[in-house]
Amino acid sequence: MLKCAVQSYWEHKLGELLEEKEGEGLLSASNAAGAAPVFLSDFIAAVEQDDIETIRKIVATLHPADAADFLRELPVQQRGTLLRALHAEMLSAVLSYCDEMLREEALHELGVEKLASAVAELDTDDAVEFIDELDEEDQQTLLAAIPTEERIILQQTLNYPESSAGRLMQRELVAVPSHWNVGQTIDFLRGTTDLPDDFYEIFVLDAKHKPIGTIPLSRLLRTRRPAELKAVMLTDFRKIPLQMDQEEVAFLFRKYSLVSAAVVSENGDLVGVITVDDVVQVIQEEAGEDILKLAGVSGQEDFYRATFAEIKARFWWLFVNLFTAVLASWVISLFDESIEKIVVLAVLMPIVASMGGNAGTQTVTVVVRALAMRQISKGMAKKVLFKEGVIGLLNGLMFAAVAGIVSWFWYHDAWISFVLAVAMIVNLLAASLAGTIIPLALRRMGADPAIASVIFLTTVTDVVGFLAFLGMATAFLL
Amino acid sequence: MLKCAVQSYWEHKLGELLEEKEGEGLLSASNAAGAAPVFLSDFIAAVEQDDIETIRKIVATLHPADAADFLRELPVQQRGTLLRALHAEMLSAVLSYCDEMLREEALHELGVEKLASAVAELDTDDAVEFIDELDEEDQQTLLAAIPTEERIILQQTLNYPESSAGRLMQRELVAVPSHWNVGQTIDFLRGTTDLPDDFYEIFVLDAKHKPIGTIPLSRLLRTRRPAELKAVMLTDFRKIPLQMDQEEVAFLFRKYSLVSAAVVSENGDLVGVITVDDVVQVIQEEAGEDILKLAGVSGQEDFYRATFAEIKARFWWLFVNLFTAVLASWVISLFDESIEKIVVLAVLMPIVASMGGNAGTQTVTVVVRALAMRQISKGMAKKVLFKEGVIGLLNGLMFAAVAGIVSWFWYHDAWISFVLAVAMIVNLLAASLAGTIIPLALRRMGADPAIASVIFLTTVTDVVGFLAFLGMATAFLL
Repeated sequence: MLKCAVQSYWEHKLGELLEEKEGEGLLSASNAAGAAPVFLSDFIAAVEQDDIETIRKIVATLHPADAADFLRELPVQQRGTLLRALHAEMLSAVLSYCDEMLREEALHELGVEKLASAVAELDTDDAVEFIDELDEEDQQTLLAAIPTEERIILQQTLNYPESSAGRLMQRELVAVPSHWNVGQTIDFLRGTTDLPDDFYEIFVLDAKHKPIGTIPLSRLLRTRRPAELKAVMLTDFRKIPLQMDQEEVAFLFRKYSLVSAAVVSENGDLVGVITVDDVVQVIQEEAGEDILKLAGVSGQEDFYRATFAEIKARFWWLFVNLFTAVLASWVISLFDESIEKIVVLAVLMPIVASMGGNAGTQTVTVVVRALAMRQISKGMAKKVLFKEGVIGLLNGLMFAAVAGIVSWFWYHDAWISFVLAVAMIVNLLAASLAGTIIPLALRRMGADPAIASVIFLTTVTDVVGFLAFLGMATAFLL
Repeated sequence: MLKCAVQSYWEHKLGELLEEKEGEGLLSASNAAGAAPVFLSDFIAAVEQDDIETIRKIVATLHPADAADFLRELPVQQRGTLLRALHAEMLSAVLSYCDEMLREEALHELGVEKLASAVAELDTDDAVEFIDELDEEDQQTLLAAIPTEERIILQQTLNYPESSAGRLMQRELVAVPSHWNVGQTIDFLRGTTDLPDDFYEIFVLDAKHKPIGTIPLSRLLRTRRPAELKAVMLTDFRKIPLQMDQEEVAFLFRKYSLVSAAVVSENGDLVGVITVDDVVQVIQEEAGEDILKLAGVSGQEDFYRATFAEIKARFWWLFVNLFTAVLASWVISLFDESIEKIVVLAVLMPIVASMGGNAGTQTVTVVVRALAMRQISKGMAKKVLFKEGVIGLLNGLMFAAVAGIVSWFWYHDAWISFVLAVAMIVNLLAASLAGTIIPLALRRMGADPAIASVIFLTTVTDVVGFLAFLGMATAFLL
């Protein structure tokens, strides 16, 4: 009965997975609709019977990214069976597509020894990412179990600052001396076994082992054997310093449409290569982090983070917000006598503050995004401020009219509608100006404009909103 | 005097540009710090003297992306000089790195005839992007000036739905028959002149011209000439249907770490190839659009959009927000008698609503981001809701305590602090639950969760916040 239930859960989950895949339009042989059901039950049976041979055979037909998906969908107890069935090479391919949670599970399921041999098979960038996620103790144990040569390279790479090009690069690359010709290069590629799995260009080194040119593979393939590399290579190519921040690296890849790029040390030696797949991850992460930072969720993006860690990531924003809210309340308390006399003020005042907060958030977001995309150069600040000022003023006039009319139909008091309308203009203008100045100022001070901008902005719009509305009401209506 | 002023403006702008480049750590020959000043003044002189030969010579040493940067930094009058100096091939390379504004300027500066020959040189994906941005009339004139063969392909591509794989792909690709061997393939590549500039894999076709395999160039280069393609090719590769949405395409590239992928028609014919540089743009755009949508700025991301278009893009969000704010005001008006008696209520009530709005926005953002990254599968909704519920409750308890204490020190009224604390718990719990349910429900209904979630959410947190606080105050304090 229990087995049956487990199986039906599986069928359900895996069926869902498969269905999603079909939805994605994947047509590859192993995922074709016709073949899938047979394969699915074979696979389930193999894992349940701990049939290592069959599991290996099936996983061999899968893309490692799909194997990682299946692993994630398995019930925890059976993940171990699947992991143990894979030999080191397969395991390392699958692990490179797993998330942090699955990797930790693999460590505890397989033990350090077996995992070390799989990690040693990974490209340096994947291996370093893997090790970096472990806690200190596991890191040391794992490193100790890796062959010396690989270990030294990994330890070196772990010493580069986080989010630097040094961390992003892999050591595996193809470089040849500049006195070779195309034929010699092709013969070298055919005769060498420990080349990287995938590479897109070949670097050309001078006698001092400095890179002086690069040859995209499509160029190499189009050139006849006797041609000298020196004549074929491109000399205008990007050399990325080891220390460059990954955001900067992503910008260069995007700007120059790069697929791979050389990483050089301070004295110009070629030390590694960054490939576009790693950069795609960086772009995805950075964009995600900006979204979360704007909403006040700090730290690295991680949807699977534990509840407590998640509370911590959101705490400070809410804490600071409580104090800005208290500040706004204090502003209101200055006018408590006016409110006591005209209670309508209490009813209408949140409208002004809310509109200011929303309009200002729009401005902050547009400016933060433009800064991230490098669309605002130093000289442009005034132009942006002017444009946003005009938008704020026009929005203010429009919504002053709408709010004035709505409130007039509600309370039939022309003075109240007038005060509401003027306060709206004042606050929407303040929102636009503050929404532009705050992120630009934070950036100039070297702070991250995505993190704190909205907090400062809502403080401004709350205070100005309540002050303008209640202040003018006190002046004109009492 | 005027010329001098223009020149010093130039020196300033270009100097700034160069400085930025050095900051980026670009070390390529043409950008090396030592060479730059000489080059800069040469370049300025050449453009001012309309010295076509020198301009061409200098641009030839630049990466087209850098040439596009220089073009953008030039005063408008001189952009024409630079554009006119370039021959079709150079022009097409530079144009593929220009933004919409510069492209339109180029059209009006150079005229349709000259531009058509440059556009015909572009890869189909770039050409289609270029044409798509023009208005209807310019489109027709430009298309008419393009040679028939290219025109038919471009018109076909323009008929694919926007944001589909068909629009993203280029027609230029390398495909060979499956009965060839490695040597024949290399000879073909060496002997053919109209190959794409860059390609990363070669597709293998069967007798019916259907793709049956792919060979990454690094694999081709490592294999000896007599090897049969059938034995070397990879048969498990992604085939992207023409109709697939670009977001879906980006997901596949990310998941499988692809550099290029085949695009197939409904009957399985190979029609084009998508390369990773186009996908990088898509990822960047989609992430940017989510940020802006969450803040209520609609439409495509475009920092340089005109002020009026920008107001339009932000109008509806603010308009809807005005009505949710009025709804919240109406809730407050239900309790105007209570407020008249205890004016402190008006002072403290925004705190509850503000904390709810902020905590809920955090939840919405985390959920929207997780949906975009496909981290929430169908079965997980309940788990996510439970986790967010726990976070909401714990946040509620924490901030109830803080708000209770702060308000006690302010008003020394235990009942008011008690009501404030309980209302905080209720609203933060409501914020978490609504912040989870709203985006998930929108997604299930086929709507975009990034667009409307925050509006619905703040409506909930305003209404629940004011209702809980003022309702309990009326019940307990009067």
